Amino acid sequence: MKKINFIFGIHNHQPIGNFGFVFENAYNQAYLPFLEVIEKHPEIKMAFHFSGPLIDWIDENHPEFFDRLAEFVANGQIEMMTGAYYEPILPIIPDEDKIGQIKKLTEYIKRRFDYDAIGMWVAERVWEPHLPKPINQAGVKYTVIDDNHFKFAGLTEEETFGFYASEELNYAINIFPISEKLRYTIPFRQVKETIDYLRDISTEDGKRIVVMADDGEKYGVWPHTHEHCYTKGWLNEFFSALEDNSSWINIITFKDAISNFAPIGRIYLPTASYREMMEWVLPPQFNHTYEELKEELQQLKLYEKIKPFFKGGFWRNYFPKYPEVNHFHKKMLRISNRLNGLDDNLKKDKTFIEARNYLWKSQCNCAYWHGIFGGLYLNHLRYAVYNNLIKCEQLIDKIVRKNEDFINLEVIDFDSDGYDEIIIENKSQNLYISPRLGGSLLEFDIKEVGFNLIDTLSRREEAYHILAKTAKLSSDEEETATIHSEIKAKERGLEQLLDYDWYRRSCFLDHFMNQSATLTDFKKAKYPEDGDFVNQPYSYEIKKKKDGYQLRLHRDGALYRPDSVFPISVTKIIIVDKEDRNILPVSYLIKNNSVKKVETIFGVEFNINLLAGNAEDRYYNVPGIQLENKKLNSIGEIENIKEFYLVDEWQKIVVKLIVDKEAKFWRFPNETVSLSEDGLEKAYQGSVILPHWNLALQPEEEFTVTITLSIESKK
Amino acid sequence: MKKINFIFGIHNHQPIGNFGFVFENAYNQAYLPFLEVIEKHPEIKMAFHFSGPLIDWIDENHPEFFDRLAEFVANGQIEMMTGAYYEPILPIIPDEDKIGQIKKLTEYIKRRFDYDAIGMWVAERVWEPHLPKPINQAGVKYTVIDDNHFKFAGLTEEETFGFYASEELNYAINIFPISEKLRYTIPFRQVKETIDYLRDISTEDGKRIVVMADDGEKYGVWPHTHEHCYTKGWLNEFFSALEDNSSWINIITFKDAISNFAPIGRIYLPTASYREMMEWVLPPQFNHTYEELKEELQQLKLYEKIKPFFKGGFWRNYFPKYPEVNHFHKKMLRISNRLNGLDDNLKKDKTFIEARNYLWKSQCNCAYWHGIFGGLYLNHLRYAVYNNLIKCEQLIDKIVRKNEDFINLEVIDFDSDGYDEIIIENKSQNLYISPRLGGSLLEFDIKEVGFNLIDTLSRREEAYHILAKTAKLSSDEEETATIHSEIKAKERGLEQLLDYDWYRRSCFLDHFMNQSATLTDFKKAKYPEDGDFVNQPYSYEIKKKKDGYQLRLHRDGALYRPDSVFPISVTKIIIVDKEDRNILPVSYLIKNNSVKKVETIFGVEFNINLLAGNAEDRYYNVPGIQLENKKLNSIGEIENIKEFYLVDEWQKIVVKLIVDKEAKFWRFPNETVSLSEDGLEKAYQGSVILPHWNLALQPEEEFTVTITLSIESKK
Repeated sequence: MKKINFIFGIHNHQPIGNFGFVFENAYNQAYLPFLEVIEKHPEIKMAFHFSGPLIDWIDENHPEFFDRLAEFVANGQIEMMTGAYYEPILPIIPDEDKIGQIKKLTEYIKRRFDYDAIGMWVAERVWEPHLPKPINQAGVKYTVIDDNHFKFAGLTEEETFGFYASEELNYAINIFPISEKLRYTIPFRQVKETIDYLRDISTEDGKRIVVMADDGEKYGVWPHTHEHCYTKGWLNEFFSALEDNSSWINIITFKDAISNFAPIGRIYLPTASYREMMEWVLPPQFNHTYEELKEELQQLKLYEKIKPFFKGGFWRNYFPKYPEVNHFHKKMLRISNRLNGLDDNLKKDKTFIEARNYLWKSQCNCAYWHGIFGGLYLNHLRYAVYNNLIKCEQLIDKIVRKNEDFINLEVIDFDSDGYDEIIIENKSQNLYISPRLGGSLLEFDIKEVGFNLIDTLSRREEAYHILAKTAKLSSDEEETATIHSEIKAKERGLEQLLDYDWYRRSCFLDHFMNQSATLTDFKKAKYPEDGDFVNQPYSYEIKKKKDGYQLRLHRDGALYRPDSVFPISVTKIIIVDKEDRNILPVSYLIKNNSVKKVETIFGVEFNINLLAGNAEDRYYNVPGIQLENKKLNSIGEIENIKEFYLVDEWQKIVVKLIVDKEAKFWRFPNETVSLSEDGLEKAYQGSVILPHWNLALQPEEEFTVTITLSIESKK
Repeated sequence: MKKINFIFGIHNHQPIGNFGFVFENAYNQAYLPFLEVIEKHPEIKMAFHFSGPLIDWIDENHPEFFDRLAEFVANGQIEMMTGAYYEPILPIIPDEDKIGQIKKLTEYIKRRFDYDAIGMWVAERVWEPHLPKPINQAGVKYTVIDDNHFKFAGLTEEETFGFYASEELNYAINIFPISEKLRYTIPFRQVKETIDYLRDISTEDGKRIVVMADDGEKYGVWPHTHEHCYTKGWLNEFFSALEDNSSWINIITFKDAISNFAPIGRIYLPTASYREMMEWVLPPQFNHTYEELKEELQQLKLYEKIKPFFKGGFWRNYFPKYPEVNHFHKKMLRISNRLNGLDDNLKKDKTFIEARNYLWKSQCNCAYWHGIFGGLYLNHLRYAVYNNLIKCEQLIDKIVRKNEDFINLEVIDFDSDGYDEIIIENKSQNLYISPRLGGSLLEFDIKEVGFNLIDTLSRREEAYHILAKTAKLSSDEEETATIHSEIKAKERGLEQLLDYDWYRRSCFLDHFMNQSATLTDFKKAKYPEDGDFVNQPYSYEIKKKKDGYQLRLHRDGALYRPDSVFPISVTKIIIVDKEDRNILPVSYLIKNNSVKKVETIFGVEFNINLLAGNAEDRYYNVPGIQLENKKLNSIGEIENIKEFYLVDEWQKIVVKLIVDKEAKFWRFPNETVSLSEDGLEKAYQGSVILPHWNLALQPEEEFTVTITLSIESKK
């Protein structure tokens, strides 16, 4: 009789920084009912991976769940898998953090379940060839990656039924291929289709092993899947079918396979992830071309043959694609370097362990990329990255500087964009200034609350926008289907929001607009900009002062008009002292260097993200003026004011923008349109505030103004 | 006027271990005439990379060449590029060796040319994402990689005209894309075609940079290219055309570009090499499918569109493809680990520097892969790898063991194939034994002469064999064309040699043949093998003795006949003492465990490679017998002898095979068919010697024989 060995694994994960109600929902919709179905099927063996953020939440909110799970672990029905604790994209964090995070989860599993985990889940299956070394060094014997990776290395489908040995510098591990076919049939197709497939690939010698392992959220959290898996009973039916066919379907765990089978060969896997991820990382137009070609090849009946050679892009190109992600990734590396570089005697300190855990939390992958779920578009996930990084930094300061006042200025290309940034840090705040990008302020960390108030996102084209612009957006309910093929919208009119920014949104961006500019056009980033200051280089001079630094940013630029070019210059002077507590006054000097009179609108753009545009506890406040709509997603203008506040009752802070010359203030929300589980959605990425002045400068005439950005804490 | 910046680089390299006449030929056909053409064109600027093996040879044989070159370097016409000295595949050697080898070449260039090299050549452009770190740590500012890699990452052709910033863990470098288009027009097409292309891509702002950089051997060494480039004057014509168009073609060096231009973006490159290399590494059938699909897509006019997504395999899979390469690669890692792991105080020793240089020489890429030139099929290149590794080992022993006698036995999966090997080392010899692969001897190093006498190669299918079997092999001269499209043969009848081995060729391989087996069939590896011993696991027991070890290898296997299965067992006992000088006696015990009488031919296969099958100074010698043909590539059988010698007057050694029971000896050459610059060629990979006995064993009956493999040195 032909037989087959079948391994079924699930990976349950929620992001660091996700809302409690999302955890609770996933728990009730997927994790709990899944376990309850298993309880009815004592013959089913499975492998489970829970990521650290979810473990932390379950331990706090539903410890009874793990107590139930522990029984199955104890009786050998469930294998527990380890992984890097907070589910980072493994290749992009330092080896010390890779190894440390894996060991943390292995030790947790030993402590909580008295189980020796020997296999690991690799977040998003993002693979690079150097990984076997740290994985082996962390004590792991095997991992699990898409068959896709194996086929890219030259294996046929038939050669993927088993596991392979691999190594880096002789640090060896085993790798199991996950069946792409089963990733699409389970749980989306009728049970029979999976059983038929298993029968198709079974052999007389019974040595083949086929693996299904994927996100646990496919069993209850993805749209319509709860009803499908539990109400309609797909999962129960699937397990029953496996049991009914147990004469030829041998259900085993990964650990069983490692003990009882030898690797069927040796392999080296190229940089890869699952097929969809490699598509998502591509520039939008390439992604679109990829999709078109795929369809064309399918019509030509060439797609299946060409698949092993037909590959998308490389994960790390999310960094150039989204500079904001690159920014916090490089900040993370900077802090990891600082932390891991501490003297060994300092590393025994409890504070060090605590700091390291914040660092590791900041590495959770979800805010670092975007495919068809929110990812980096969700500002609460980015918030969590900064929050953990800033907390980590504070603890390092506590260890190294014993909480004393200090001031530190570094000129360094911290984000590896080929240009130096200026980082000024004191006990209360961090400033990240980019001379290259218009002398702007990219990051302003308020250490007390662990908050970077400039964490916004520029609006960029996405491959699905290209579709959305032509396709009719649907908001109907559809049948259960793999989410990848749906384009739905959560509200009407989103296609009106598909404007893209031509510069990176930050603070102290210097605009010189034609007088025909309107708030509406400015919001669309399609207004007449005459100057070359917004995204062009500023020179800089740094002066050390008694208790701090003076930074002078300067650009000799110009206004470009159809009739003529008007040389003008902008100088902005920033002084930061070690005692400064979240206050940043910037003195501007604009000079007309042309021989003609210049008339223009000069504005300084601020992007401030208090995370919620429509919340009751976050709002604008303009002293002396009653705002019609004070929500942070409101649009409007106010003339002749000097003070403009953003109140955040949640974090208990007030962000104050104060100018010493009366200005007109524009405000509007920066909103992106991105895909989520439920379709296209609008996401608030912060408020844009533009104090601006009508200038009419004679030759050699100067205009000066001081703009102060400060944060008052009410804690 | 539209302008373009053009960078022209060449990379000159010869393998470690190549014959002096090959160096001399390449020097006269390519390197020297190229320089002589440059001398006539003072406006031409170029970048040159010379690999270490070539530098060593030129310094010894033509120092005047570098004196001439130095003048061009001094006047700024030529930029010198660094690289890892002995041209290793960069990702597959430890970081310490990467950095050390790069620094060695940079320091040489400084010493010899008084020039600060800031850019490096990456051997075969084999890229992995972790490389920016060691490259940056070695003090390198930029490197040069195929545009292919960039397009795989999602760039359009237009976006490849300039250089990009990249990084690993914030260690930053710049990377220039090499134009694939120019790699095919220069020097193979008419000069006009290149100039027209440069005009096509030139722009009004004149900011684009296009790079041509490739092997210098394309200018004189590849078939017909010397006549094409010099006799017919292509190179002179090309340089004249560049000069004639200097109003819009701005010829610069990489260093000029780095000083005067900014990176046009940031990028992360996936695992890749040039397009052809990614094809060659694929399994033969996949490689063939790739070619077929490429043609089909070209006919459908889809190829150009699909190219950025149409990718071959991953370089490291040369290791599973050729286990013999994996073997010396892992031996190299083992020795590198030993060397780099020495105490820092030992590293100051002159002997350490010398040992390290042998290690670095052993890393030269040429023997580690195969595409359409010889590579790993050339046994003198593999010889050089072992020779340098064994010399390195001897020096480490000198440093650590002060030349004293020792014996060391390790059970370790040194080659990461998932199974342990047994390594037994003493002052005179190293034995690498594989219990998994029939308890065979994979490597036998004679330290005195720096020689592994078992360095052979199994015969395997290559993609071009599939073509060769169907295509008419041509031996006509053809016009100058890119070598990739030719299939020629250096001699007739090679298609008769396309037999493949089903096991890895080594020593002490235990055959049980049906009595119908013939020498002819055995040579084809298509004879009736009844036993399951050749490539199946042996168990092992190790006993420590006073001055050495006893290793007992055992397998309870069987003979499989149509009518019945006959259980039999093989035991082989090896004793190695610390005083042993290149002598290896192995005692065999064959036992019939079945209840029937067994008749069979029992043979023990030896593969011994003295590097030349047809040389006068290497031959067989059978005491007391006059051989008709004593060349090592002769085929024949001799009955009733006990001694069988292979004489190597070049290395001054005699390899002796001595059996204590008279046997029949078969001998024949192991010959592979591989591609070279001049077409398909036969390559001698060693001699196969099979002493064998007709056995007729009653139930429980045993047969014993002792076979001694020993090497006498006449030095």
